Amino acid sequence: MAARRGDGRAPLGDERAADIIRAKRDGRALSAGEIEFFVRGAASGGIADAPVAAFLMAVYLNGMDAAETAALTSAITRSGVVLDLRDVPGPKVDKHSTGGVGDKTSLVLAPAAAAAGAVVPMISGRSLGHTGGTLDKMESIPGLRTDLTVEGLRRALATCGAAIVGQTAEMCPADRRLYALRDRTATVESTPLIVGSIMGKKLAEGIDALVLDVKTGSGAFMRELPRARELAAAMVAAGRAAGIRVGALVTDMGQPLGRAVGNALEVREALEALAGGGPPDLALLCRELAARMLLLAGLADDLAAARERYDGVIASGAARARFADIVRCQGGDPAVVERPGRLPAARVVREARADRAGAVLAIDTRAVGEAALRLGAGRGTPADAVDPAAGFLLSARVGDRLRAGDPLGAVHGATEAQVAEAAARLAAAFEIGEGDPVPPPLIHEEID
Amino acid sequence: MAARRGDGRAPLGDERAADIIRAKRDGRALSAGEIEFFVRGAASGGIADAPVAAFLMAVYLNGMDAAETAALTSAITRSGVVLDLRDVPGPKVDKHSTGGVGDKTSLVLAPAAAAAGAVVPMISGRSLGHTGGTLDKMESIPGLRTDLTVEGLRRALATCGAAIVGQTAEMCPADRRLYALRDRTATVESTPLIVGSIMGKKLAEGIDALVLDVKTGSGAFMRELPRARELAAAMVAAGRAAGIRVGALVTDMGQPLGRAVGNALEVREALEALAGGGPPDLALLCRELAARMLLLAGLADDLAAARERYDGVIASGAARARFADIVRCQGGDPAVVERPGRLPAARVVREARADRAGAVLAIDTRAVGEAALRLGAGRGTPADAVDPAAGFLLSARVGDRLRAGDPLGAVHGATEAQVAEAAARLAAAFEIGEGDPVPPPLIHEEID
Repeated sequence: MAARRGDGRAPLGDERAADIIRAKRDGRALSAGEIEFFVRGAASGGIADAPVAAFLMAVYLNGMDAAETAALTSAITRSGVVLDLRDVPGPKVDKHSTGGVGDKTSLVLAPAAAAAGAVVPMISGRSLGHTGGTLDKMESIPGLRTDLTVEGLRRALATCGAAIVGQTAEMCPADRRLYALRDRTATVESTPLIVGSIMGKKLAEGIDALVLDVKTGSGAFMRELPRARELAAAMVAAGRAAGIRVGALVTDMGQPLGRAVGNALEVREALEALAGGGPPDLALLCRELAARMLLLAGLADDLAAARERYDGVIASGAARARFADIVRCQGGDPAVVERPGRLPAARVVREARADRAGAVLAIDTRAVGEAALRLGAGRGTPADAVDPAAGFLLSARVGDRLRAGDPLGAVHGATEAQVAEAAARLAAAFEIGEGDPVPPPLIHEEID
Repeated sequence: MAARRGDGRAPLGDERAADIIRAKRDGRALSAGEIEFFVRGAASGGIADAPVAAFLMAVYLNGMDAAETAALTSAITRSGVVLDLRDVPGPKVDKHSTGGVGDKTSLVLAPAAAAAGAVVPMISGRSLGHTGGTLDKMESIPGLRTDLTVEGLRRALATCGAAIVGQTAEMCPADRRLYALRDRTATVESTPLIVGSIMGKKLAEGIDALVLDVKTGSGAFMRELPRARELAAAMVAAGRAAGIRVGALVTDMGQPLGRAVGNALEVREALEALAGGGPPDLALLCRELAARMLLLAGLADDLAAARERYDGVIASGAARARFADIVRCQGGDPAVVERPGRLPAARVVREARADRAGAVLAIDTRAVGEAALRLGAGRGTPADAVDPAAGFLLSARVGDRLRAGDPLGAVHGATEAQVAEAAARLAAAFEIGEGDPVPPPLIHEEID
């Protein structure tokens, strides 16, 4: 019933858009040129919301093969400015996580990799739903700004070797449009669209290598291991198709990473890890991710040597000093590194407690993240302000045996009422009962 | 990855729209309430283009069952004014065709059924792509208007028993929005969406009975018989679910119906049929469709009696006189009925001729329609003006044996250049060669 095709009714661009939608609708693989046309039209506004939305649903339902996904990724990257960091000496490497609760590894990895000789143009995001955002964490440091220009980012990288900043408006405009539409059209959970969005942005950083941390479990977007594995493999393939070195770990988000959930609390914990301390799961994951960053960046010959190099910059204090440099470069108060007490602190701190005896069988990590969000650690809408001091400092983990009344974690908040509500939500997220649960492995798989 | 659900980020309506899209995306059957919500939102503009487009693609790819299709139809009907014709005496019946080339049956059926005692509120459309439009045909009659108000239509029905008019703005606003979006999102060719659109509009006429003429063949939207049959069955089911009596014929559009293609030319041919003449295929189809209208309207006890009643109003001249009444009711010049020479006539008429000897193996009927469109009989864009005099008067049909140079049909147009181009296109639409083609049956199937 394509009665109006070719008769001049619609502008030529609309006709081509409809042809491309029709091809994907009918399950055909699209050419790189067809994908480029659609992504450019999405970026420029030349293709209206309705055809873009129909295209997204057709991709959601009929998928994209590896070549199409690579073309989508490349088109998203090239929809805006691509950083050219060739004049900044050193291998450019980044790490990307698919998002979780308590994941502050970026704050450790950027300075540690930079201290070990890498250049880390870490373009990060804000809190999204139940997950935390690296930018919000960094901004809990007094004075620190993440809204650098492309030139400011280049200067920061030349000076400090690393920067943790937000995306500039010139980068990946297609992704912003596509993401906003996916959010409204129930097309978020599509592997090729996720790959295009994540890898498109990462490749715009002008990096040589990338380590992916794909989360799985109750606090992850990809709760099931097979889905996480599929996403990791697709991202690795798209990165390699673009000519960079990529590795991926599928790691556990069945419970929060480390103890701290909430912005300033997580910065404090990252500082502990940079000083060689901090919760063992956080320390371990940082070490494994950093080692892969250094290996892929060509700064170590094998994984063992890369781990040693990481251990060295932690033990020497070089990584911690580099964090202070990054903070200074971005206008923040570097004294927080020595005196974390200068970070925002909550007015009210109360312990959440177990309401029964037993073992911690599981933690609904998404619920923990949502409780933190409601407490002010995240944002319900993009316009919401974040309370940098709000959050949890957890004391119980999966497998712990508790008596009734034992502490689960400290709740940090602005008011007694908010804290009491969050404490109740936090307690409800812990499944306590009879059994002998085996804590999940921190690292599920490595994707090569 | 539905991270933002339930956290207050999007307006409640957007959230519900996304839930409904998600359900259809995942292949679930929607409730009547969910479909109603979406159709109302589409009609009011409360749901934006992007979610509507994603919904349409999800329906295209995952379909709708009979209950969903009935709910969609009902919601489209109720998105605007539904005619209440209870104070106009007589059974209300209409005929709807899925569109073809040279199909002027409406111009015969409306007056014939009215002359036989039915009330025919025939709300029709304009030319669309390669297919002709009943309104354009009627408007080739000098002075005639089709843009009646709801009140004007009611008066016309009370006076003449039939009216052939366009849809008013108050009727089926949801359909206009959905149709415009389907056209831009490659979601036109979806059985539930087609059924919702056609039957939603027909049911808004307040009719008791409906005869469907579903076309198949090279000039039809549903070229393949199985698709036409499926569409016919789905429309019959949706109509019955809404409580009206419905029948359907699947008829041939493998060649133009009758000889005339083009607005004034088709009015002339319809007048011949009303006078008991005209091409035999047109006369036969009018008789069969009219008989079913009268039977379903309760104006005859069986098909044989219904045919007799039709034959009676044709033979007596009552149908033809009623056509004059309709023309007068709608502001047109009823003298055209007696003097068809008052209809617009083309300045240039040239014969298209066979370029070789042989049998007419097939006619690319869509190409005939497109050639007529380019000659001015249809419109490429909704804003285009139609040349009422332009068109073809065909002389060859499938199965005819021709010598080289034998006439295929007369081309009526405004300029020599246009006529020459159209004659070439018309000749190219005829497949002439060796063989003994069996002309397709006019009526393929009856759907009960």
